[in-house]
Amino acid sequence: MAPDAPLPPGSVIGILGGGQLGRMLAMAAAEMGFRVHVFAPPGDNPATDVAHASTLAAWDDFAALDAFAAAVDAITYEFENIPVATAEFLASRKPLRPGVRALAVAQDRLNEKTLAQDLGIAVPLFRPVDAAAELAEARTFVGHTGRPAILKTRRLGYDGKGQAVIRSDADAAAAWPAIGGVPAILEEMIPFTREISVLVARGADGTVRVFDVPENRHRHGILDTSTVPAAVTPGLARRAEAIGRRIAEELGYVGLLAVELFVEGEGDDAKLLFNEIAPRVHNSGHWTTDACLVSQFEQHIRAVAGWPLGDPRRHSDVVMTNLIGADIDAWPALAAEPGARLHLYGKAESRPGRKMGHVNRIRPRSG
Amino acid sequence: MAPDAPLPPGSVIGILGGGQLGRMLAMAAAEMGFRVHVFAPPGDNPATDVAHASTLAAWDDFAALDAFAAAVDAITYEFENIPVATAEFLASRKPLRPGVRALAVAQDRLNEKTLAQDLGIAVPLFRPVDAAAELAEARTFVGHTGRPAILKTRRLGYDGKGQAVIRSDADAAAAWPAIGGVPAILEEMIPFTREISVLVARGADGTVRVFDVPENRHRHGILDTSTVPAAVTPGLARRAEAIGRRIAEELGYVGLLAVELFVEGEGDDAKLLFNEIAPRVHNSGHWTTDACLVSQFEQHIRAVAGWPLGDPRRHSDVVMTNLIGADIDAWPALAAEPGARLHLYGKAESRPGRKMGHVNRIRPRSG
Repeated sequence: MAPDAPLPPGSVIGILGGGQLGRMLAMAAAEMGFRVHVFAPPGDNPATDVAHASTLAAWDDFAALDAFAAAVDAITYEFENIPVATAEFLASRKPLRPGVRALAVAQDRLNEKTLAQDLGIAVPLFRPVDAAAELAEARTFVGHTGRPAILKTRRLGYDGKGQAVIRSDADAAAAWPAIGGVPAILEEMIPFTREISVLVARGADGTVRVFDVPENRHRHGILDTSTVPAAVTPGLARRAEAIGRRIAEELGYVGLLAVELFVEGEGDDAKLLFNEIAPRVHNSGHWTTDACLVSQFEQHIRAVAGWPLGDPRRHSDVVMTNLIGADIDAWPALAAEPGARLHLYGKAESRPGRKMGHVNRIRPRSG
Repeated sequence: MAPDAPLPPGSVIGILGGGQLGRMLAMAAAEMGFRVHVFAPPGDNPATDVAHASTLAAWDDFAALDAFAAAVDAITYEFENIPVATAEFLASRKPLRPGVRALAVAQDRLNEKTLAQDLGIAVPLFRPVDAAAELAEARTFVGHTGRPAILKTRRLGYDGKGQAVIRSDADAAAAWPAIGGVPAILEEMIPFTREISVLVARGADGTVRVFDVPENRHRHGILDTSTVPAAVTPGLARRAEAIGRRIAEELGYVGLLAVELFVEGEGDDAKLLFNEIAPRVHNSGHWTTDACLVSQFEQHIRAVAGWPLGDPRRHSDVVMTNLIGADIDAWPALAAEPGARLHLYGKAESRPGRKMGHVNRIRPRSG
């Protein structure tokens, strides 16, 4: 087989990470006739329930990684906090898609914001903060922008964790310990009218396909709903798509990339500002499973396997709602709701803030 | 938990059989947060690739069946030729849905045709044939009906196997050895205008939901395409649905039942004749995965788990085409076709006549 030939059915896709994203990727791969091998640290790994094979080992267990690489034909990941050394080790053995660079960029807010800025994409004002003393400048920063600021850890932040809002000197003093005293970036807080995300897929051949842009609402820092179509103009949606495409192309990206954007203002004149990227399938793309013929999960596996990308057309309108923690206790009512499709992740235990499932409510397409 | 309470997420669904139907059932169950345990005789069992646990043992290995029953919360099956003794053994230990009676009826063409006739459903003329000598009557039978006859084994026939057409005395002489000299039934051959099937689901609470009726075309005795909507009038579709409902209710059925029907003539006056039932998810329902919010697989698992049935509404028009044997070699072209979704079964080896996958081609709903 030529090195760039698409992987034939029966090939083995390796997935790094055993959570719900890995689980949904594994099922998409199985639908395409692939076998899946999950690699994840020991713990509650619901992806292993639907995988042909699993290796439970630490990210720095290089003997286990070596055996895993030998057992698979291509490798992808379900989350971006895999150590770069692990990714590099695997990439030297089998195709790793998306590649190491996307991972390295996405792991550090300073890197990703700098990349966007370098590409001419509008970004909230930001500056790196490496010590408590530097936060004294926050007041100047706030004064300069006329907006509150937000301090975010550069690494390992997700679902609103590792963030502190600064509106006053007292906030500034509290923010550094609040985020754990680690390297951070200080950003102006955008008074956005809405948040949207671009779900852009780029194939191994460079083809780019973009799903319709969802509008995302958060609750307690965690995604609550994604609604499609978003209440944005076609012109704005096209500008958002162009941003996603530019980043995917710059990164030589192969797979599904999510780009989160702030919308400031309304209509065609609304401003789009870069927030962050996720080099993987994304919670704000879960609606695609029930509103499109090809889901974000299948689209990602297609790219990883070197297949042509699928048709991202949307056949229905949809609102995706996350089930966080005890929200899952409503499953009997959700199971009985017409027009709703329930997706549960098979996690052993429900904890506050833990993503346990989601529900897609679909309606006939409005236009 | 009350005996009739719905199974909560995290429960274990046992599936008898490890083929593509078991595989698609297993993925539907996983999407609902269940774990799946597959029981199948050793061999190529693609369902085990997406199952939490598997037991590979013979249908008469009662020690293995006992351990399997102890490990699961409810049991279903992907095919109807499981020995009744096996089904009875399991049903005495855990809820088996659909039950033993549906299995016993569906295993014998004489039983299923007699059941339909007893329910007042029109059935092609038929008679049991237990010996070669009885086939001498075939000529009379043909003369009586004015139509050719078809000899079918009572048991273990599928995909056109175990059938012989009789148009002449010579055919009659050849037919008995051709089907292997086993108990059979002789039927008049219906000059049908089309074949349709009813995909009827009945919940544990007796609720019945019916998918839109597909029109099915066969090639070499094997299902080739299912098209929805079928070219039948709404009145005929309603009559077909009523037949499915009557059979499901008579059997106290819980799960997805397929009823195959012949249509003779056109329009509202067309005649509907019973052909056969399958007490399981059915190849002619594979289109539901991509054209409905809730697929036949999820609908079946909902019934097995005691959940409320899902919404069988169809959001798109669809043509499902089976990939038989070497048809799967066309996967690169099918993967690139817009509006087509490819489903491959992960079987290790392609053989003539073997179902390797299917493709659903969807279009916006016509009405």
